[in-house]
Order: sequence, then structure tokens, then C-alpha cells
Amino acid sequence: MFQAQDPDYEQKIRDSFAKQGAMELVNGRIASIEPGQVVLEMPMDRMVTQQHGFVHAGIITTMLDSAAGYAAFSLMPADAAVLTIEFKTNLMAPAKGELFRFTGRVIKPGRTITFCEASAIAIERGKPERQITTMTATMMTVLGREDVKN
Amino acid sequence: MFQAQDPDYEQKIRDSFAKQGAMELVNGRIASIEPGQVVLEMPMDRMVTQQHGFVHAGIITTMLDSAAGYAAFSLMPADAAVLTIEFKTNLMAPAKGELFRFTGRVIKPGRTITFCEASAIAIERGKPERQITTMTATMMTVLGREDVKN
Amino acid sequence: MFQAQDPDYEQKIRDSFAKQGAMELVNGRIASIEPGQVVLEMPMDRMVTQQHGFVHAGIITTMLDSAAGYAAFSLMPADAAVLTIEFKTNLMAPAKGELFRFTGRVIKPGRTITFCEASAIAIERGKPERQITTMTATMMTVLGREDVKN
Amino acid sequence: MFQAQDPDYEQKIRDSFAKQGAMELVNGRIASIEPGQVVLEMPMDRMVTQQHGFVHAGIITTMLDSAAGYAAFSLMPADAAVLTIEFKTNLMAPAKGELFRFTGRVIKPGRTITFCEASAIAIERGKPERQITTMTATMMTVLGREDVKN
Repeated sequence: MFQAQDPDYEQKIRDSFAKQGAMELVNGRIASIEPGQVVLEMPMDRMVTQQHGFVHAGIITTMLDSAAGYAAFSLMPADAAVLTIEFKTNLMAPAKGELFRFTGRVIKPGRTITFCEASAIAIERGKPERQITTMTATMMTVLGREDVKN
Repeated sequence: MFQAQDPDYEQKIRDSFAKQGAMELVNGRIASIEPGQVVLEMPMDRMVTQQHGFVHAGIITTMLDSAAGYAAFSLMPADAAVLTIEFKTNLMAPAKGELFRFTGRVIKPGRTITFCEASAIAIERGKPERQITTMTATMMTVLGREDVKN
Repeated sequence: MFQAQDPDYEQKIRDSFAKQGAMELVNGRIASIEPGQVVLEMPMDRMVTQQHGFVHAGIITTMLDSAAGYAAFSLMPADAAVLTIEFKTNLMAPAKGELFRFTGRVIKPGRTITFCEASAIAIERGKPERQITTMTATMMTVLGREDVKN
Repeated sequence: MFQAQDPDYEQKIRDSFAKQGAMELVNGRIASIEPGQVVLEMPMDRMVTQQHGFVHAGIITTMLDSAAGYAAFSLMPADAAVLTIEFKTNLMAPAKGELFRFTGRVIKPGRTITFCEASAIAIERGKPERQITTMTATMMTVLGREDVKN
């Protein structure tokens, strides 16, 4: 649906993802990358839970923000960096499961502002997949800043 | 400004906080607890960063959600549990610093729904404190659910 | 996809809609009602504009909130009322057109809390339809309150 | 706290406000303008209500968006226009009263993106003022666009 401006968008995202300490911390990994859509996954782990043993809403949000941010990044020019301006997360069901899948999608790309949506699915053997969380996010294209670059 | 219904609200929050694997993961700690307000802190660490070396917006959100959730929890009845319904995070400045302080406050408590605000400050030796992020959040009082209890 | 609990859900929504002074004010009308989805329409008018001649973001939000609220209401018990807890609106493109269509959908119904999404489309003769705005909203089922009832 | 770049910021806001058909429609008026803060007021009227006789959440949002947008606009360069990117509204209490006051404030101005907060107060003779709604909003400085200009 969207076309990447930067032919190296996939490698650019993999390199950037590898620099995110937070992704290593929660065992996040890239499942797929295409122009305007990035899918990430994270396994269940006691270390990412809140008090009832579900995944902490903030950790779910961490994965959704990375998925949405990289979806936006995939459509940006080669020399641009991406920053999150804001996001809103709706927690529809407790985050319990064995594996979680996070899909970030560009809804409307722009020169400066890109609108994204993201969604989290809980996966458990022998059960149907359940949508647990949705996010809407606003991403910004950053050019020419020393502290925010590729 | 607010009064706790449960005289053991402080201990209840400390016990619940200790069960949050995610707080241990990011080295979050409780700075102060009072009725309707909880302050948390987190040190800078390479393991919580995004690609530019700032703290990941999702990790900031994790701390803000815990601060806001426990602020709401401080005003709930003894047998209630707290769940986050939704939050929105505004990222006003890059999360760089040595220490981060997260203040969650109840704006309007209710029997079922509690409105909260939260704010993150970056602290760096020799520099003025900077507000980096704000959040608004809706928390829910949960009673009588087997999977969500104290 | 969803089933209404109240067999009179459609009439109930039409009656409630007729009481909304704000819908009359902006010439909003019901296009369709089904369980979990309500579609509203509003014509362009100089009286609903902001300073550049587009429809004011708040007026777009008024229509989206009514669409989402009635979508939630369609699934509620006969004696329940609906109140909006919060919504977030993303304004992706200027609201210019001849007619605007607003679709509110339930994403996850619940006994107390219902999660909804809503979307606004601009329609102009001879042009493709354009999505201009999205909303996520949290609606609450209200029972037994004197000031908030059907 | 903030300083206006454009010495004519107040007149510029009054001129722009006068072009908002939606403000005329709901009888909105300017109460005060200063750099980074704009206060608006709106009287109660049956024409702005939802089904229970409170002011419609979308109409409250219309006033808050104008207040926040003009607060942002007050700090922008003389040739800039302002557009709303997104807002989130929290409805803490039913909007009943005789008069409503809406305060929009800039939290963090920026070259492209300005973060704002806004708050609505209900006023009723013989009763204390009540905060009924809060908003966070992201505003954008627009330069050089034919369809979006002062």
C-alpha cells in the first residue's frame, strides 16, 4: 500500500532496533518489516509483569511504540530519524499468554507528521488469538538534529 | 487533599509494587506514597534506551503507569484491585538524564473510575530539572474477580 | 458480529439522539444503526467551521463521540444509560467536503466499560472519499443514577 | 512565563476567532488572551446538550480545542497558522452549570510542535466551581501552505 523512499529501509530498521537496549531487555524481536508495517514479538516472562502476573501495560506499550515508530520510519527519507510525539493505549483485556505479537501500521504518512496505529495480540497454544491492546500514535520526522539521528 | 479508605494503603502498595517484575527489570523504586499521590524513581541505564540513547518512551510510560495506578490504588477499598483502562503519553522532550522521577496523582477518584495524571522529570547533576513527559490515565476499581485481586 | 441485549435498541437510540440539542445544532442525522455500529452524517455548513473554513475539530469530535456512544449504547441492557469517559481524536487531514460520514464501532463491549473506535470520512462530488479523522473512546454503562438515565 | 514572538498576537487571535463559525454557533467568547494562555467562555444552552441535558462532550471539546489552539497560536511567528494534530479529552464530571470556562495553556512550545493542556470549569451561582474536563493537545505550526494561513 505504501512505498518506501529509502531502498535500505529494512536494514536501517534492523540496525536501529539493535541499538534499542529496551528491546533486548524485554526479549523483543522483529517478526516482519514491510513499507508502512512492522511486526514485533515478545515472549511471556515473569520479568515484564505487573502485580497480577499479566504483562505490564507499559511493557506492552514499549513494544507497540517500537512497532509503530519503525512502521513510520520505514517510509521516511534515508537521512531522517523518527521520534514519538505522543501515543494513547487502550487496554482491552489482560495481557496473559505465551507470546505477544505487536503490529504497527502507518495510517497517514506526512512530511513532518506520521499517524500510526498499533495492536497487540496474545497467543496461547490451543486457544484463539486475542486482541489485548490498541494504540494510536503520532510520529515525527526529524532532520538535521545532532542528538537525534540514524 | 484525599483521604485513604484503607488504613494499610501504604503497605498494600509496597507489597503490590514488589510483585511487579517490570519494576525490578528497570530498577524502579518507590520514593514516596501518600493518599492520591505516588512518586517513583528510576536510574538511567543503557538497558532501557531507544535507538538514540534516550530512555524508551514505553519505559517512561511503564513508570508513569505504575505511579498513576498506585496513586489510584491508594484511595481504593481494602479488597479492591486496580486495572489500567487507558493512558495517553505526551513526549515533550527526550528522556536523557541520570535519574528520572515519576509522580502519579489522582485528579478525580470515583467508585468505579479514577482519573489520574502523571508527570516525568529528568534529573542531571548541575542542571535544572526538566519535565520530559506527561500522562493522563483512567484507572478502574476491580472487585470480586479471581484473576485480578490484591 | 455483536448481538443486542435490548430488542428495542434501535428505537432507544433514535429517541436518545432526538434529545441531543447538539445534533440538531450541527444538522447531524442518523444514517444507520446496527448492534455495535452506528453511522451518522453531517452536511458542510459555514456555522461549524474553524478559521480556515474547515469543519472545526471539536465539531467532528462531537459527531464521532455521538456515533461511538450510540454504538456502545446499542449493546447495553434496556435500563442502562451511556456516558463518555474519555476519547482521543487524531486529525489526519483537514475536514473539507460537502458531507461527512461518521462511523462508530464497538471494539470490545464489557459490563461496565466498552471500548469503541470511530472514523470520519469526507465526501465530495467527483472526488474519492477521504478518511479525515479517527477516534478511540471509552464508554461507561451507567445504571441506577437519577441524573443519567434513558 | 512565555513571550510572544508576534507583537500583534492578541489581535491576530481575535481576528481568527471571529472567523470560527463554530464559536458563533455555540456562543463562545474570548475571556482573556496572554502569551501561552487563552481563556474562553460559553453559556449553557439547550442547543449544545447531549441526551441527559448536560453539555455534549464534543462541544466542551470544541471550546477546549479552540482555547488550546489559540494558546499555541499566541506564541507562533506572525506568518504562521495553527492546526490541531490530536487531542485527548477526559470527562471527569457531567457538564452541567450556567457558564463554562475553558483555559488553554502551552506546556512546551516548539518550532513545529507545541504541547498544550486545557481544562473546563462549570460555574453555577451559589455553588463552588467544578473542574469537569481536561484535555491534552498537540498543535502544529504551519508555514507556507495556501489552504492553511492566517
